[in-house]
Amino acid sequence: MLDVTERDVSLTEWVELIAEYEHNDIPIINIKEDGVTYDAIFVGGGAGGRFGGSYLTAMGGKALIIDAWPFLGGSCPHQACVPHHLFSEAAALLERERRLAGKLWFRQPGELKVSMLELIEAFRNLRNSAHAVMNFQTKSQLGVDYVLNAKATVIDPYTVEVAGRTFHTRNVVLGMGAHQRPLHLPGGDLPGVYDYATLVEDLDYEPTRCVIIGGSKVAVEYGSFFQAAGVQTTILTRSPLLTTKSLHHVDEDLRRYVVDNMRTSGIQILEGSTPIAINGDGKVEEVVVKTAEGDTVRIPCDFVYNGTGEKPLSDLASQWLGVKVGARDEVVVDSRMRTSVDNVYAIGDLIGGPMEMFKARKCGMTAARNIMGQDYEFDFSEYPDFLHTTFEVTWVGLTEDEAREKYPNVVTLQMPPKGIDPSTICLPASDGTMLYAFLRPEDSGFQKAVIDGDTRRIVGVHHVGYGAKDAFQYLDYLMSRPEGLTVDDMAEMNELFLNPEHFIQLSRLRAGSPNLVDL
Amino acid sequence: MLDVTERDVSLTEWVELIAEYEHNDIPIINIKEDGVTYDAIFVGGGAGGRFGGSYLTAMGGKALIIDAWPFLGGSCPHQACVPHHLFSEAAALLERERRLAGKLWFRQPGELKVSMLELIEAFRNLRNSAHAVMNFQTKSQLGVDYVLNAKATVIDPYTVEVAGRTFHTRNVVLGMGAHQRPLHLPGGDLPGVYDYATLVEDLDYEPTRCVIIGGSKVAVEYGSFFQAAGVQTTILTRSPLLTTKSLHHVDEDLRRYVVDNMRTSGIQILEGSTPIAINGDGKVEEVVVKTAEGDTVRIPCDFVYNGTGEKPLSDLASQWLGVKVGARDEVVVDSRMRTSVDNVYAIGDLIGGPMEMFKARKCGMTAARNIMGQDYEFDFSEYPDFLHTTFEVTWVGLTEDEAREKYPNVVTLQMPPKGIDPSTICLPASDGTMLYAFLRPEDSGFQKAVIDGDTRRIVGVHHVGYGAKDAFQYLDYLMSRPEGLTVDDMAEMNELFLNPEHFIQLSRLRAGSPNLVDL
Repeated sequence: MLDVTERDVSLTEWVELIAEYEHNDIPIINIKEDGVTYDAIFVGGGAGGRFGGSYLTAMGGKALIIDAWPFLGGSCPHQACVPHHLFSEAAALLERERRLAGKLWFRQPGELKVSMLELIEAFRNLRNSAHAVMNFQTKSQLGVDYVLNAKATVIDPYTVEVAGRTFHTRNVVLGMGAHQRPLHLPGGDLPGVYDYATLVEDLDYEPTRCVIIGGSKVAVEYGSFFQAAGVQTTILTRSPLLTTKSLHHVDEDLRRYVVDNMRTSGIQILEGSTPIAINGDGKVEEVVVKTAEGDTVRIPCDFVYNGTGEKPLSDLASQWLGVKVGARDEVVVDSRMRTSVDNVYAIGDLIGGPMEMFKARKCGMTAARNIMGQDYEFDFSEYPDFLHTTFEVTWVGLTEDEAREKYPNVVTLQMPPKGIDPSTICLPASDGTMLYAFLRPEDSGFQKAVIDGDTRRIVGVHHVGYGAKDAFQYLDYLMSRPEGLTVDDMAEMNELFLNPEHFIQLSRLRAGSPNLVDL
Repeated sequence: MLDVTERDVSLTEWVELIAEYEHNDIPIINIKEDGVTYDAIFVGGGAGGRFGGSYLTAMGGKALIIDAWPFLGGSCPHQACVPHHLFSEAAALLERERRLAGKLWFRQPGELKVSMLELIEAFRNLRNSAHAVMNFQTKSQLGVDYVLNAKATVIDPYTVEVAGRTFHTRNVVLGMGAHQRPLHLPGGDLPGVYDYATLVEDLDYEPTRCVIIGGSKVAVEYGSFFQAAGVQTTILTRSPLLTTKSLHHVDEDLRRYVVDNMRTSGIQILEGSTPIAINGDGKVEEVVVKTAEGDTVRIPCDFVYNGTGEKPLSDLASQWLGVKVGARDEVVVDSRMRTSVDNVYAIGDLIGGPMEMFKARKCGMTAARNIMGQDYEFDFSEYPDFLHTTFEVTWVGLTEDEAREKYPNVVTLQMPPKGIDPSTICLPASDGTMLYAFLRPEDSGFQKAVIDGDTRRIVGVHHVGYGAKDAFQYLDYLMSRPEGLTVDDMAEMNELFLNPEHFIQLSRLRAGSPNLVDL
């Protein structure tokens, strides 16, 4: 056991400690006071547990976070959001190099050589630095107790055992996350089959030909990265991409722009296809697939990526406490994150989709507030969303089609304007698409605001480009207010030009009119 | 005279027309109805005139826009914001290549060869495409009358002559913009001396060694571009960079991060220096400078950039109408954009700083609303701001120092945290700084939120990185509301993680506490 409670562990020390302890089972203990009864023990120190424990501590409560890894933050900095963003940044840079090859300072076509393995190794080499921040911040800045590198056993809602010790609590908050659903088809466990987690953990060769099974957000994102990194990629998907039920409010114009762009990158997308088997002698060599036309096709490959979605890790929760579990393996909770068992809460990916950061963290906060006596509900049925291809794609609110079903007088502001060939217009030029605007105008992005013309409220915004993701957090907040966000409000704003999304100025060009029309 | 009124001119036709007409003086006429009395004639079709004319037309008024160029949009798409953004995007990409040289797919040190001239030519070749959008949108989508490629003469507030015709109006709105102040020192007019306008118009060789005279925003931005493009750059500035009075609310920590980063790029910054002369035999060969220490130094160079700031083009306004002009050559207006002469308004860069897009456009809108009988004021004393080095730098509200003067209990949330060596922490990793985070952590950016701990309001936010510019438009709006924006509001938001600025989650980590403290 390593007790760091009394030590002032620096960031660099944490990096070294984590590197050492990830290869052993020795618990790391940071507990300010022995023998206390906690207000909550958070089982799982990912986003939900860490934010829940921090919020509860900030409120003056006593929280203990337990995680099996030697660091806090969960899968995000270890296998999920952080490497995903690293890979997506690489994908955007590499795709720009490919599309502008031979122009300006960009290398000639074929000259760019990329090692995907090297990038993954760069991530592996430094990911402990991100982990270290989580441990440092949570201990030294936020003052939260934790036990790391040790598996918890929940005895009942008031008793948790870990690292050979028994801890008492008034509530248990379960946040054990989710993991990739395995591929249920012959050859699904052959070497050479990867998912987002095993990719960063285990990849030890340079793939050249990839087949992705599944059409999830993760499949779209990683497929774009593989292709940009020079790995010829085929996506096998039952439904057309970005139409799955788990992705709501995807505008059809945006969807088409994004999917066409993936095809432009060279990704082969087989819609309506069903994988039959993965074959190979000791490692994957081909995927057998039944196409939409009913043909059986063999796709040679040395790399298969499982993009079929994740399953909440609810088995232990069920065994320990008998909490109710739903049809998709999720622990069932109410809007206060209470499970079916008194004093047991569940948060994050464990309660099902959307498996997004905002939800995990706000679940943790919601549990903390209720545990501390505040009556606080969290409704995550509506939220802003994004994904990366080689573009950043963001949206919030209604699609144009959804708006037309709901409102009689729908107005859109968009670029390129409806009916204009994108290759003849360099707009939406903006941060990140300036070179495209002047060298390949059709790649300068797409944006659309959807407005209820009667109330003048902006009811949906949709963006393909770069640099708008951060803004969509605030657009979501503004649009969700009871008073909403009108084109007249937008016309009053102080734009920072060239703004990545041009909604403020497009709104201003129309706002003078009592009768809004498309732009 | 080319009358396009009855023609449906497409985007591609506009590109060709502008290319042809920029070399002649033949007016382009788009006037729906002859002999009307306009509500306003906008003299100058830049951002202010175009948005003013469009807003007034949308309100049901009659507007005529006149511009001496064969396109609308003014200097922005021709010489200013658009090329600046293109160059800044290039600078960010090139600097990343240099800093990560030899790593991953990046070329070895010294292998990257950049032609600045080629990039400028790429801009010149396609800028008419941006111009075409302005003409197309204003005629075909916004329905505003205009006369282009012809110089106006204002006879009185009710009479304007252009293209051999006389137009009648109830008001005149002046928006003739600004231009670079010339260098008043020996050799200031030698070939090889450029400013933002002549750079894109005239450059015809590949510079290798640059001296920038002046420490304005433009000097910082173009200097960063020149250096990233491989042109060794020296900036001569009286005051330390980013401390000029024209740039308000620059936080000292942000300033230091930005200026240190410029030095890391290899830019030489001579603070407290005074240029004495530019010498050369037929073109610039050296700049003679008196340093802060009082020494006289000769800096060899083949390229001098005038970054001393702009002067409003108020001479004609004064001659035509006798409007009052201020000490910095600006036409003096009130908060309704009214000049000292009845029925004469002035807008945009012509009325002085800040010479920013939001101000120009909203000035135009303000004039339009007042002309159409609405009592509408525009106060631009406070606004969000940004600049580019090889980073995007954004800020709004108070600096930490300003906040400490105003509030007794100031709290900051920042990354890297105070007192932490940036090279030991990969945060703020985010879109655009992921590769830096894993390969050169000290280049992953800087961010700080400044909070009045008593009201819990966020009173200033400051960011160095990428992707936050768009968000700052909305942060400005939210912070400027009478109720402000509190850390508790932020804790409720749905972040899109990894968000470029991490203010939402940093706020949430603290929001539980009744007594806020630094993070």
